[in-house]
This record gives sequence, C-alpha cells and structure tokens, in this order.
Amino acid sequence: MTGSGTRAEGGRTRLTEPAAFREWFAEQGADNTYRVTRVPLDELDGWHFDATTGNLAHRSGGFYTIEGIEASLGEEVGAWTQPIIIQNEIGILGILVKRFGGEPYCLMQAKMEPGNVNTLQLSPTVQATRSNYTRVHRGNAVPYLEYFVAPRRGRPVFDSLQSEQGSWFLAKRNRNMIIEVPEDEDIPVQEGFRWISLSLLRSLLRVDNVVNMDSRTVLSGLPFLYDHDAPTDESASHTTAEILSWFTEARSNHVLERRRVPLNQVKGWNRGPERIEHERGAFFTVLGVDVEASNREVARWSQPLLAPVGRGVIGFLCRRTDPDADWQLLVHAQTEVGTSDVVEMSPTVNCVPGNYAHLPDRWRPPFLDYMLSAPPSCVHFDTVLSEEGGRFHHAENRYLLVEVPDDFPDRLPGDYIWMTRRQLTGFVRYGNHVNVVARSLLACLTDWDR
Amino acid sequence: MTGSGTRAEGGRTRLTEPAAFREWFAEQGADNTYRVTRVPLDELDGWHFDATTGNLAHRSGGFYTIEGIEASLGEEVGAWTQPIIIQNEIGILGILVKRFGGEPYCLMQAKMEPGNVNTLQLSPTVQATRSNYTRVHRGNAVPYLEYFVAPRRGRPVFDSLQSEQGSWFLAKRNRNMIIEVPEDEDIPVQEGFRWISLSLLRSLLRVDNVVNMDSRTVLSGLPFLYDHDAPTDESASHTTAEILSWFTEARSNHVLERRRVPLNQVKGWNRGPERIEHERGAFFTVLGVDVEASNREVARWSQPLLAPVGRGVIGFLCRRTDPDADWQLLVHAQTEVGTSDVVEMSPTVNCVPGNYAHLPDRWRPPFLDYMLSAPPSCVHFDTVLSEEGGRFHHAENRYLLVEVPDDFPDRLPGDYIWMTRRQLTGFVRYGNHVNVVARSLLACLTDWDR
Repeated sequence: MTGSGTRAEGGRTRLTEPAAFREWFAEQGADNTYRVTRVPLDELDGWHFDATTGNLAHRSGGFYTIEGIEASLGEEVGAWTQPIIIQNEIGILGILVKRFGGEPYCLMQAKMEPGNVNTLQLSPTVQATRSNYTRVHRGNAVPYLEYFVAPRRGRPVFDSLQSEQGSWFLAKRNRNMIIEVPEDEDIPVQEGFRWISLSLLRSLLRVDNVVNMDSRTVLSGLPFLYDHDAPTDESASHTTAEILSWFTEARSNHVLERRRVPLNQVKGWNRGPERIEHERGAFFTVLGVDVEASNREVARWSQPLLAPVGRGVIGFLCRRTDPDADWQLLVHAQTEVGTSDVVEMSPTVNCVPGNYAHLPDRWRPPFLDYMLSAPPSCVHFDTVLSEEGGRFHHAENRYLLVEVPDDFPDRLPGDYIWMTRRQLTGFVRYGNHVNVVARSLLACLTDWDR
Repeated sequence: MTGSGTRAEGGRTRLTEPAAFREWFAEQGADNTYRVTRVPLDELDGWHFDATTGNLAHRSGGFYTIEGIEASLGEEVGAWTQPIIIQNEIGILGILVKRFGGEPYCLMQAKMEPGNVNTLQLSPTVQATRSNYTRVHRGNAVPYLEYFVAPRRGRPVFDSLQSEQGSWFLAKRNRNMIIEVPEDEDIPVQEGFRWISLSLLRSLLRVDNVVNMDSRTVLSGLPFLYDHDAPTDESASHTTAEILSWFTEARSNHVLERRRVPLNQVKGWNRGPERIEHERGAFFTVLGVDVEASNREVARWSQPLLAPVGRGVIGFLCRRTDPDADWQLLVHAQTEVGTSDVVEMSPTVNCVPGNYAHLPDRWRPPFLDYMLSAPPSCVHFDTVLSEEGGRFHHAENRYLLVEVPDDFPDRLPGDYIWMTRRQLTGFVRYGNHVNVVARSLLACLTDWDR
C-alpha cells in the first residue's frame, strides 16, 4: 500500500529491460483493484450544478469546476461559447533522478487513473494537485513529495510552470520538476514505484498508452540533465533571435478575446442531468464517474471527466540536412481557447480531424492530409498516447514524426517555422512557450544519451 | 517637421560626442514649441467619467482607461483597492541599429512628452501605441515604422513582449524590438532623429533625465547584438537551472488575487472633478493635461496622467569575485498589483520610500536603508531617470548600483538571489521574466562593448 514504507522483494527496484518492466507492470495491475463506474452528473457524490450559474463544482470549493467560456479569434472565426475546465491551483509533476553506476534512472510510478483506457499507466514520481498535497481530500500523504517542496535536497535539473490542454482547460498550469539526488543518497522505493533507466523509458515511449501525459511533459526537460545552457545549434535554420522574433510577431498579431461565462449561458451544448454534450455530438462530452481504488490516496471518490469525441492527430513534420544533424521540426504558433498568452509553440499538426468533417475545406488544418498520407518509410514515430487520465476519459491521440522530402516547399504559412529539437527544448525551460502536446512529442523524440 | 523627409544640414546625422549631442538636443528644444496645461479631469476634451462605473475613458474607446482594481497578496497584507491604468493594446518600442565603419549606432529621437519634467528626452526610433500606428488619432504616419512591422527588412536582434510598471498598469506590455539594418542600406535621417554611438548612449544614461524609459527597456536587449546565445557564465554563483527553479518557486508560492472593479468602487481614494487622489495624499494622483506640440503626430490633444507622490528608489546591490569578473546583482522576485504572472525579477530595492512612512518598521522593504546609507565609494551608479512621460507626470526615480562588502551576509530572504548581469540579460529576451525597472537599470549597467 502507498505510504507503507520500503519494499522488500530482493532489492529489484531498478528496471532496465522491457521484459522485466512488463512483468512488474502486470503484477501492479493484478495486485490492485480499481473500478470505474459511469454515473449521471447530477448523482455525482460531492458535486453539484450551481443553481444560479449552472457551473459544475465540488462542495469543498476545491479541485476544479466546469464552467463556460466565450471566445473569439478575430473576424474570420467569430465568437463561440463552450464548456471549459477551470483549475487555478498549480499542482506538482515531479520526477526524481538518481544515478546508479553513473547511469541516470527515473523514479516512476505505476498509477491508475479513472480516465485511462487501460487503467494503469506510468506516472512521474509525484503527480499531485495542490488539493492532493495540502490534503484537501484528507487522503494519505503523497510519497516523495518532500523532494519537490522547499526546503529540499537535490539539484534542480528542470523546474518550470507549464501549460496544459488549451482546448479543455483555461490557462491551467502545473509545475514540472526534475530533481537529481546524489548517487549516495538512499531512497527507499515504495510499493508501486521503480527506478527506470533512460533507455528503457525511451523504448516505453514508443509503446501505445504506457507513459502517461504527466510523465511526458516532465521528461521534455530531461535534456537539461546534461545541458546547463544550450549552445549555438549548428544544424539550425534560424537563430534564437529569429525564432523569438517570429514568436513575438505571432503573439502580437493574433487576437484571442475571451471571458468566462456561467455554464448555463453556453450555447449549442446540451446540459442534461446525465452529461454535458455538444448538440451535434462534436468536440467532447462531460460525464461522471465513481471510482474505487485499492492503491490511491483516497479509496473511493466521484468526479466529472471530459471525454473527447474522436482521436486527435499530433505530429511534427521534420527534416535534416544530413543523417548526423539534429532533426528540424516544423513548429506552429497555435492559439487555443485556453492558451494563457495567445499562442504557444505547437506541433505542425494538432487537431481532432473529426471536428473538421462538416466544415469547408479551407478550414482544414494545414499539413494534416500531407501527414496522414506520408509513405511509411518517412514515418519515424507513430504511437497512440493518452492525455491525463485524472481529467480526461479515454483521451487518446496519435503522435507522429514524419520526414519531408528534399523538394518540400521552402515557403511556409506565417505561423510556421523550422527549428531543431535542441532549440525547441531550449524554449521549454522558460515555460509559457511550448504547449503540452509539443512537449509530450518532444519527450518521445529526444535522444537523451546524445 | 516629422514626416517631411531627410535632413539637409551637411550630413551631420551621427553623434559620438557629448558636446555635439548637447548642442543638437538644445536646438531641438528651441526649434519646437510644446505647451502642457493642467486641466480638471472633467474638462478633458474627449474624455469622460462613465456614468455607471465611474471609469475615466476616451470617447473613441481607444488609448487607455483609468479603472479600479481589488487585490490581495495573501493573508498578511490583506485586500485593497486602487485606481489602475488599463491599456490592453500592445505598442511598439523599436530601435534601429546600423554600423558605420563597423561601429554600431542607434537611431534615436528627441521627443517631447507631456509628463516629462524637462519636456524633451531621448526616445527609441519608434515609440508608438497601436492607436498611433493604426492611426486611431488620425495623426501623421509614424516615421520608420516600416522597419518594425512585417514584412520587414533587417536582422531581429531583440524582439519580445515586455511588461511595464506593475503598480500603475494592469498587465500592460509593449513589444520591444531592436532591428539591425545592413551597413549599405541608406536610411534617410528625419528631423528630430540622430544616429547615436553606443559609447555616447552609455554616457547619456549616466545623466539625469535624458534617456527615456522606452529607450532604456529596449536597450536592455542590446547585448544580443553580439551574443546569439548566452554561454555559461563562469562568474555566476548559480546555474541557469537553479535560478529558474528559484523563480518558479516564487511564482508558485506567491498569491496574487485580483479583479477589476469599477473606479467608483475604489475605497480610500477621492474622485473629484479635478483629480483622483488618495485620501492620505499617498501613492499617486490622476490629473489631466491639455497639450500643444509643434512636432508630434497630432498638434493638440488632452489626456489624463498618473502623477506619483514622491521619488522612488530603484537599485541593485552588487558584488564581484574579482575586478575582471562580471557584476553579480541581487535580484528580487517581486509581486506588484498589475504583474501579469505573479512575480517578475526586480532590482534589490524598488519602492517609493514615502509610501512606507506611516507603516510599522517590519513593512520597510529589505535592503532599502542599507542601500541609502552606503558609503559613496561603494556607489557605482546613481542617476535620476524618468518613467514614461506619455502616461506619468514627473515620475522620477533614483537608480542605483551599490557594491556590498565581502562580509555581506550569505543568507538571503527566500525571494532574493544573486545572478550576473549576463544571466539577468539572458532572461530578458524571453519576456515575462524581468520587470521594467530592472531592465531599465540593466541597460544603464551593461558594457555593450565588452
């Protein structure tokens, strides 16, 4: 059980091989029980629709709420309203790193989340909302939290506030942290945790639905284990100054006007006692679940989840000048309704194709069809990965890396620019620059051992 | 007259010596007329107090408004309300750089602003609100604007969105740009403009009230003329990762809750027809002026200005390991009511001492008394500089750099950290990290020729 101290079973607390990982992970699934039951929103224990605003909220005032937002992206798109998750508190997503015989390992956790398609995925050492770690829900203490809150030991490798899904959250951020502890520090490995080597972690990122979103966003900062300050990148097409100027231009030119509105003023969505859904069945549904778990801080709870309709496509087009050079990625300055500062750096493609089915062709996202029709020899990464199972129900996206041929047009739409993996990683550490799906994909594409 | 094309007078469009600058600057003052007359707010042409909210606004809906804000910084300080300037549009502050015989020069402008104590100060090449350059006020075109809007020529040296005074503006930002044009590009020098060498500019920054705030904030990015990417800094006490972690900790721990309120709900302030002022005469006053100018885009206009009560003290404590090493500056993670993201990197001291006169000693800002009582031999910079004369009336601050002795305590309050000038400059380019007074002082302290 979580919180019950160190593990005995013969010191096999480190994993380096996929087979050993699979065995341990299967045990974790078998050892613990977890039951997720759909319930109507108006029967969710502890949650209620506010009589005045229609907002869905918890009686404690904590966790998060489902409210409405009215937004406009300038004249062409016009204004719309939609439900959105409001979660102002900043949680901690933290990974402990320690070297064994010089090789770095990450302390990862097999964690069940109610929205996961496969119940169990690999989580960071700490994945805690502020409500979690300040004990709003009166659960057990969060293991290893002491390594991530001041005053703490260990070297900060990566520590920044990072955005999450801008279509579903309003300006939500979590604190992403990687802390390296000295090789001689004894860290008891609790039940459900393992030290996982970087090469194993890298191979697990290529398996569908194993490494969860919270892990991926934190791992996007792992290159800073080696790079204290990024040097000039010889294989880049643009200098840092040029990229920053392109980004500032995008932030200055795009218009994102928005205001929070009560959920009962959202138009085009049906708010039934059972669920909240778009009247054409598009975008997403908000539904309710009861959860029973044997290995979580709280044994039983209820919560709403946002269930996207249809699988998304998230991919970078890439190229390189020669096989030894770093990949260049085609980055898009993208606005989403909840983006905290107008645009962030996003993959070339980041959309749910189904949402465009009823729209004229001119609305179809640039490069989507190009990416989906690329020959297999050009597809260097193609994995289905899940978004956060604590808020989203069965939210899977197909993540891709697709190489373009030499005759790919030089001329790009204004909101796109080529940058190297190193350059994009360099922007991650400052926060507020690279969106969650770009960070997630970057984690999958980076050779940490280079 | 502005917009009338190139200058004749013998090609003396470059200045390298203080005496020649003084002569030219005096001519500019003599050649142009400028009259600023105080008028009651309720007689300001084109401006009115909204009947419902009490907010002070322009009839066009453009420019800016004076509204109210209610804020709280957590339990100890408690909540308060105050007037605040709301200006959502992003203006451009841009400096053109060109080399003559290899030496870089900045194209600067002698500009009159209604709030300046001395009428005329040295401005960037372009200093334009969006209302200016999109011609909301139907004035003349903004000279040199074409170098700062896409599509444009020239190399972007520095281009980022930067905050302004957080005590007076709500989350206001301007786009700060330095564009270098090729040495062989012919740039006609218009009336009121001069190419100014970096060494002259550096000496002018040491003269009271000459180089205006807009110039200083842009000049904080001038080191990127040479540094494409900042290398590791040998004279630093902390790595970039450690500083970012300290900053993220401050952003996560500080609480800044605020909401806009109608100006007529602001408590403790008198809103008369003449002016808006604090009932104890503290903080600032909002007053009105009529302006007549011979050399501005518009010949005559009226506007409100914010007049701070008392002169501020803005200073870095500094140290260095040896005389060849870079200065280390003691940086404070400071919250101001209008700071867009909770805290920004600020000088060691940034306050108006008079505002603390009636408060208990424990409220007195750390290091203020230390800084004001330092022996003259430790004071490396001490100049009175003005804040933006287009919004603020006679807003002067004393800017200081004060060296601490070797026995200065190692132990610091948690929101303070030592970083080198190079490190602090490195954060400037990402925006949203370094506040306006820190950037302003940094511009004064940096040896651009090193």
